Amino acid sequence: MAQQTETEITIETRGRGLFEFTAEVTAWVSEHARGTGLLTLFLRHTSASLLIQENADADVLRDLETFFAALVPDDPARYRHVTEGPDDMPAHIRAALTQTQLSIPVSGGALVLGTWQGIYLYEHRTAGHVRKVALHLLTG
Amino acid sequence: MAQQTETEITIETRGRGLFEFTAEVTAWVSEHARGTGLLTLFLRHTSASLLIQENADADVLRDLETFFAALVPDDPARYRHVTEGPDDMPAHIRAALTQTQLSIPVSGGALVLGTWQGIYLYEHRTAGHVRKVALHLLTG
Amino acid sequence: MAQQTETEITIETRGRGLFEFTAEVTAWVSEHARGTGLLTLFLRHTSASLLIQENADADVLRDLETFFAALVPDDPARYRHVTEGPDDMPAHIRAALTQTQLSIPVSGGALVLGTWQGIYLYEHRTAGHVRKVALHLLTG
Repeated sequence: MAQQTETEITIETRGRGLFEFTAEVTAWVSEHARGTGLLTLFLRHTSASLLIQENADADVLRDLETFFAALVPDDPARYRHVTEGPDDMPAHIRAALTQTQLSIPVSGGALVLGTWQGIYLYEHRTAGHVRKVALHLLTG
Repeated sequence: MAQQTETEITIETRGRGLFEFTAEVTAWVSEHARGTGLLTLFLRHTSASLLIQENADADVLRDLETFFAALVPDDPARYRHVTEGPDDMPAHIRAALTQTQLSIPVSGGALVLGTWQGIYLYEHRTAGHVRKVALHLLTG
Repeated sequence: MAQQTETEITIETRGRGLFEFTAEVTAWVSEHARGTGLLTLFLRHTSASLLIQENADADVLRDLETFFAALVPDDPARYRHVTEGPDDMPAHIRAALTQTQLSIPVSGGALVLGTWQGIYLYEHRTAGHVRKVALHLLTG
């Protein structure tokens, strides 16, 4: 008989970049999950993203940020929406190009993440922000 | 005991751009949800997308469209797949870069959307189309 | 009363490109689903993606690859993370720009895929790889 559990995780970012929170998610899931299940993470903001990425080499995260900074320049001349700063509209575009939500199956009580997969919050604003991620867990 | 409900929403677009349908989704969810739940929206087309974006300033939506129009030009010389018009292959690429599906947790009977988050259908074709979005709701 | 089922599909890719596996997914779903449900697919790798795309014209897949190859060049001079080959960091970036996970509602025992929608694994590495996709199915 399927059951549901929910919580919210708060992440304080320190400006633009990727912040891994796999351990925090895994700890909560292992408290509540047995057997088969489904975890859904939802970011309650439009200027940051959720991302599954490689967690073995920190250079991957730096290269990712370099790519997005070049693809979506912080150049106010390109945008109409500039009142919240030169990094705000780029943040919305980066969010559109990545994900606001992730669902990860649970098997044998654990997330089916691959060996090198980590769960990241990608902060797109240059200043630090307090970000809230809603978690929903379906369990057996 | 978890239960499921489903429906389909039809959206008539008026050409390229973002069409918010948060109110229609929220109304259906509030009819069926109590307590904890999970809503999944799935777009049944490959030349449009679903997107969570800021709904406070319409300039965000215009800047987003300007960005995608520059990133994926409607230039038939770049594509093989051109029989359905110069905007068709760009529409498929835009769809690949954004989302076909969104899942949003429900807490206390309401979607956990952040203050400025709206649910949008992003039409990528230049002509208006009738778009179908399948909704699945898991409730307590 | 909602129930859960799970499995894993293995896909052997033959290098960069899109590999459709709609038939394999549909077969498994039709074995287990009746009425309303929700299928979630999760790719256990960070250098490939899951994608819903048009399955009517193979040129769509070729144009998509041409676009991504130009957007994210296999140019080691652009990246720090190069030890696994010139195509590895571009693979992680392509994965960030596309999806690691897809959820598709089930209605009347069948996926609600639109007429032209196919489910693809998008291999971003130039060499073939063995890729594992976890499937989770919620049924009535």
